Amino acid sequence: MRILVVNPNTTVSMTEKIGATARVIASPGTEIIAVNPESGPVSIEGYYDEARSLAGLLQVVEANLDVDAIVVACFDDTGLDALRCIASCPVVAIGEAAFHMASMLSNKFSVITTLARSVPAIEHNLHRYGLATRCARVRSTEVAVLDLEHDAGPARTKIDIEIRRAITEDRAEAIVLGCAGMTDLTQSLSSEHGLPVLDGVGCAITLCEGLVRLGLKTSRLGGYMPPVQK
Amino acid sequence: MRILVVNPNTTVSMTEKIGATARVIASPGTEIIAVNPESGPVSIEGYYDEARSLAGLLQVVEANLDVDAIVVACFDDTGLDALRCIASCPVVAIGEAAFHMASMLSNKFSVITTLARSVPAIEHNLHRYGLATRCARVRSTEVAVLDLEHDAGPARTKIDIEIRRAITEDRAEAIVLGCAGMTDLTQSLSSEHGLPVLDGVGCAITLCEGLVRLGLKTSRLGGYMPPVQK
Amino acid sequence: MRILVVNPNTTVSMTEKIGATARVIASPGTEIIAVNPESGPVSIEGYYDEARSLAGLLQVVEANLDVDAIVVACFDDTGLDALRCIASCPVVAIGEAAFHMASMLSNKFSVITTLARSVPAIEHNLHRYGLATRCARVRSTEVAVLDLEHDAGPARTKIDIEIRRAITEDRAEAIVLGCAGMTDLTQSLSSEHGLPVLDGVGCAITLCEGLVRLGLKTSRLGGYMPPVQK
Amino acid sequence: MRILVVNPNTTVSMTEKIGATARVIASPGTEIIAVNPESGPVSIEGYYDEARSLAGLLQVVEANLDVDAIVVACFDDTGLDALRCIASCPVVAIGEAAFHMASMLSNKFSVITTLARSVPAIEHNLHRYGLATRCARVRSTEVAVLDLEHDAGPARTKIDIEIRRAITEDRAEAIVLGCAGMTDLTQSLSSEHGLPVLDGVGCAITLCEGLVRLGLKTSRLGGYMPPVQK
Amino acid sequence: MRILVVNPNTTVSMTEKIGATARVIASPGTEIIAVNPESGPVSIEGYYDEARSLAGLLQVVEANLDVDAIVVACFDDTGLDALRCIASCPVVAIGEAAFHMASMLSNKFSVITTLARSVPAIEHNLHRYGLATRCARVRSTEVAVLDLEHDAGPARTKIDIEIRRAITEDRAEAIVLGCAGMTDLTQSLSSEHGLPVLDGVGCAITLCEGLVRLGLKTSRLGGYMPPVQK
Amino acid sequence: MRILVVNPNTTVSMTEKIGATARVIASPGTEIIAVNPESGPVSIEGYYDEARSLAGLLQVVEANLDVDAIVVACFDDTGLDALRCIASCPVVAIGEAAFHMASMLSNKFSVITTLARSVPAIEHNLHRYGLATRCARVRSTEVAVLDLEHDAGPARTKIDIEIRRAITEDRAEAIVLGCAGMTDLTQSLSSEHGLPVLDGVGCAITLCEGLVRLGLKTSRLGGYMPPVQK
Repeated sequence: MRILVVNPNTTVSMTEKIGATARVIASPGTEIIAVNPESGPVSIEGYYDEARSLAGLLQVVEANLDVDAIVVACFDDTGLDALRCIASCPVVAIGEAAFHMASMLSNKFSVITTLARSVPAIEHNLHRYGLATRCARVRSTEVAVLDLEHDAGPARTKIDIEIRRAITEDRAEAIVLGCAGMTDLTQSLSSEHGLPVLDGVGCAITLCEGLVRLGLKTSRLGGYMPPVQK
Repeated sequence: MRILVVNPNTTVSMTEKIGATARVIASPGTEIIAVNPESGPVSIEGYYDEARSLAGLLQVVEANLDVDAIVVACFDDTGLDALRCIASCPVVAIGEAAFHMASMLSNKFSVITTLARSVPAIEHNLHRYGLATRCARVRSTEVAVLDLEHDAGPARTKIDIEIRRAITEDRAEAIVLGCAGMTDLTQSLSSEHGLPVLDGVGCAITLCEGLVRLGLKTSRLGGYMPPVQK
Repeated sequence: MRILVVNPNTTVSMTEKIGATARVIASPGTEIIAVNPESGPVSIEGYYDEARSLAGLLQVVEANLDVDAIVVACFDDTGLDALRCIASCPVVAIGEAAFHMASMLSNKFSVITTLARSVPAIEHNLHRYGLATRCARVRSTEVAVLDLEHDAGPARTKIDIEIRRAITEDRAEAIVLGCAGMTDLTQSLSSEHGLPVLDGVGCAITLCEGLVRLGLKTSRLGGYMPPVQK
Repeated sequence: MRILVVNPNTTVSMTEKIGATARVIASPGTEIIAVNPESGPVSIEGYYDEARSLAGLLQVVEANLDVDAIVVACFDDTGLDALRCIASCPVVAIGEAAFHMASMLSNKFSVITTLARSVPAIEHNLHRYGLATRCARVRSTEVAVLDLEHDAGPARTKIDIEIRRAITEDRAEAIVLGCAGMTDLTQSLSSEHGLPVLDGVGCAITLCEGLVRLGLKTSRLGGYMPPVQK
Repeated sequence: MRILVVNPNTTVSMTEKIGATARVIASPGTEIIAVNPESGPVSIEGYYDEARSLAGLLQVVEANLDVDAIVVACFDDTGLDALRCIASCPVVAIGEAAFHMASMLSNKFSVITTLARSVPAIEHNLHRYGLATRCARVRSTEVAVLDLEHDAGPARTKIDIEIRRAITEDRAEAIVLGCAGMTDLTQSLSSEHGLPVLDGVGCAITLCEGLVRLGLKTSRLGGYMPPVQK
Repeated sequence: MRILVVNPNTTVSMTEKIGATARVIASPGTEIIAVNPESGPVSIEGYYDEARSLAGLLQVVEANLDVDAIVVACFDDTGLDALRCIASCPVVAIGEAAFHMASMLSNKFSVITTLARSVPAIEHNLHRYGLATRCARVRSTEVAVLDLEHDAGPARTKIDIEIRRAITEDRAEAIVLGCAGMTDLTQSLSSEHGLPVLDGVGCAITLCEGLVRLGLKTSRLGGYMPPVQK
């Protein structure tokens, strides 16, 4: 099985880190192809970056459609609906993957993301997926995506603070880490805080493997009908 | 006052028609600048076209930011959130404009759009704006956008059928026409069917004029915070 | 174009202030007719005042139906649905006007109103319009409507405090001022706090002008069907 | 125990019929005082009649506040919130009473009311009470309130048709009769159609008796705070 | 009239206390039969206890079906839907009873329950009944059910604290006590805090008496259809 | 990895069929232990059967807790919350599994279940999970669970009819089969109707494998806190 993992931003080091995470999670026999667009924003923080990344994202996916499933590895689930129109295989984004899995482990979860500017887009997605009622609160740490790449120390402290608040103030029973760059913190945060901490990359990889094994594909009716040439 | 009316697809004849509609509606003293992207899809029908249009849409708007307000003249409100991040003026999309105005004229309205593939994106927007509870049903005529340009006769018949169904089956009290290409049918449909029929272009123009006269601009806090250079 | 602006309470000084605000906002060529009922409560704070004001409100509007649009200038949108049954022109209330416009400038807004007793009626309206999901919180300052008329100083301080809380605690991106008596504070509050601050009177005037220019009228089907004589 | 049953319209024969129904349901020892306003509409069908009835409704209730509970005997729950501000006893309206009781007998119920013009106001109430999710559909028979008074024959046939549709099309498990004038049909409709058929008058009387026996009164905090003299 | 009051846990002293409360509330002529299962958990705190209590609960109710109505006297409304399938009479649970009645006395209420582990099940019920929008917050005191039996002193202090928070932080206008063991505190809490305080046992008893007097029974269509023998 | 697949009813042939399906789907190295309670209903159709099955269900799971994950193989997700309190591993039910996966393949799905009596319980679950907004309609075929076991022919015809209606009337883009007994029809229904058809057993198995591989377990905070001994 071949899974295309597409990082919608152009930061190669982040693509590699995401690819490595995906390979650790993937079953034996699953090949992970981690790619990113050639041009576009270096990180995706909010609506504008999302929109700017789409041309490159479509291009890199269209060049790699010969796969069994596609993972969109950006927490705001950039371009998810558009990609479902062009891929005959399942397409799973890391935000939705984590929200769905957290809903099966807890009554309510909170999301910890990077910047306040990203919060409305994430809330918008939760609302659209139907899972806003399962999310107690979307919290931001004010740690930028690329700072997570460069020095994770201060970021960790800020994440710890927000998780504690999520447990006491939001009555969250699980935490979703709202950034592909927080992937490697999952286990230590879970141990320290004593609750499930979910990273979307892992969730999306295993969901894709499951969908492929079940022979399930994106619907070709209605909103995801393949585009006509024009 | 200068209002930029951006048609997110590249069909110049449609841009001109939308521009002409906007000029008829606009107050004396309002200048309408109607533009479209240089490249991208010739019409926008569903998620994939939306995503493909965004690079060109951002480009043409960024080249024309010296205006008092911006209208996004595609019924799926393409790129609305992203444009709000870069424009210091109000940005109003024609779908939302029509939904908001229809909510002030009726208890419930129905939407008549072109193709079934566009319905989920419109429902998604209604849900996000909060106005899904005000919309009785999104109906499709299976008339493609460009067919509306070439020969409106059969389209008119199909639209009539759906409006009648909306009144009797949905108990709709108003109709929103879900395509910028249906603009010129508004008045005759309203007369024939005896209820308000709204076209988003007119709604958006007058909303922009109102917001500008009130000195109101898009918020710079939270989700619409201007992007940092990176 | 003639717009009837009806203040549902009987305080003439407030009617004059609202009329003056409306005239500043209105386009050249728009005549503002500001009226109030002959009898009824001197201010409207909560459900009981609303109910008591309706007989006078209907009477004064029925005596002035020869207009192009009607603005209900009380933030709890008193009598809005009833007036839509008797007016063949558009009827816009200042609460809904501000909520709809704030929804096009921000992801979420907060409302700052006068007394706690008014909060449930405002929340009820937001819920009915569908826009409760767009409103982060309705806050009260515990400044009575008529105190705003007599000495705005202490009121301003309390409004400032609530706006600061709305930004930090509610993550509000815009503020709706929930009382027709706060109209003249709009611009200075917006400058000081750095976000859009909306007053319903201005919003309603420009919405009415827009609806009239578009030839749109209240639906005569369903809930707003004109009453039969009995 | 004394319960004031107020019919918000001025049709004395209907007041007497409602009073008689209430007395049949009431416990021994409960005195029913059935009143109606001196002036106002002869029946309440939609938003305008509601608004016109309020002055008379407040007046007749204010003249009869020396009771243990108040029933508002109009299915659109006219003036309910305002009356709760002035009464220190419980105030229950017949629409809400029937909706709450039907929610304890069925998974979903449908409402059968008189005219289409009344449907949005009823839907609005269901939404506000939270019980819109429990109501499968609000159906209208196009039988006017006063026709029910004069000749119930044709009305009965139309109600039968709508109940059958509610069972098959809406999967309704109970029926709420949406007009105080349908009170005397309850039992025969229930027998014929084999499901619970609820009339609001009976529901409201027993709810009031229960609240009084429990010593419960309308809250004096927040939205129902008693009005100050002004 | 005979009402079966079933305490789903096996603590006989609690059954007796609930039975005594019910008898105080019940009308003359109403016989209260208070029972509990022979085996099962001694208290019900959360999902697991609920599930464990069901076999015993069904058994004790099936042995006592010759009654006019049934009250489920556990605040998480254990087994409510199942009991409605087997009883031809009305079945009312104390949680729903209190939520419905509080909705007729206040714009919003808060719930004060025992342990945090019970909160999600209560929120789940509120959501299912449609009344989640009427509940400001479900609060826990961290007082276990049986501690309420043994020494109510410290519990009372904790309940007082949460009620004060509900009034100031949640803007609650009424309080629902979320445990059958708090029944005897109702009146003193109401006097001290100046708002309606509802206990589900009393609410359920009077609702059952009302439903019986109205001749209303649980629907036999759809979800509550009687089970076939198998 | 060992996954306990528990069929909450006592029909051994159905347990074997479910176990066989699970083994086909499971990864190499995953051991499936398929069990059913010793006593309880032979099939689960609606609320009463659910409640009756719980004692046996808890017993058989408690005797088999030494596994890596648990699948509840009944479409109404019987006992799911209770089992999450006692299992330190992930617990996934087949209804929720299918709803979550269908949400990642389609904009909206419809559910085809057996009897009308099961519909409210399924709608109730969808509502609780947040996914009611993603489900266009829950349809019943009026084919009993055990009839599916004995002669699938007529059942297949009825399922075909409902799928066609779901596509045309509900605009469903995917179908969830709402009964563990329909498992073996998945692929042929998908081929014939040209859209994804999901069976919960397969979905739950792959979700469990994913959660286990990710090291994720049910939260021990809040509602799923392990029960104290009492």
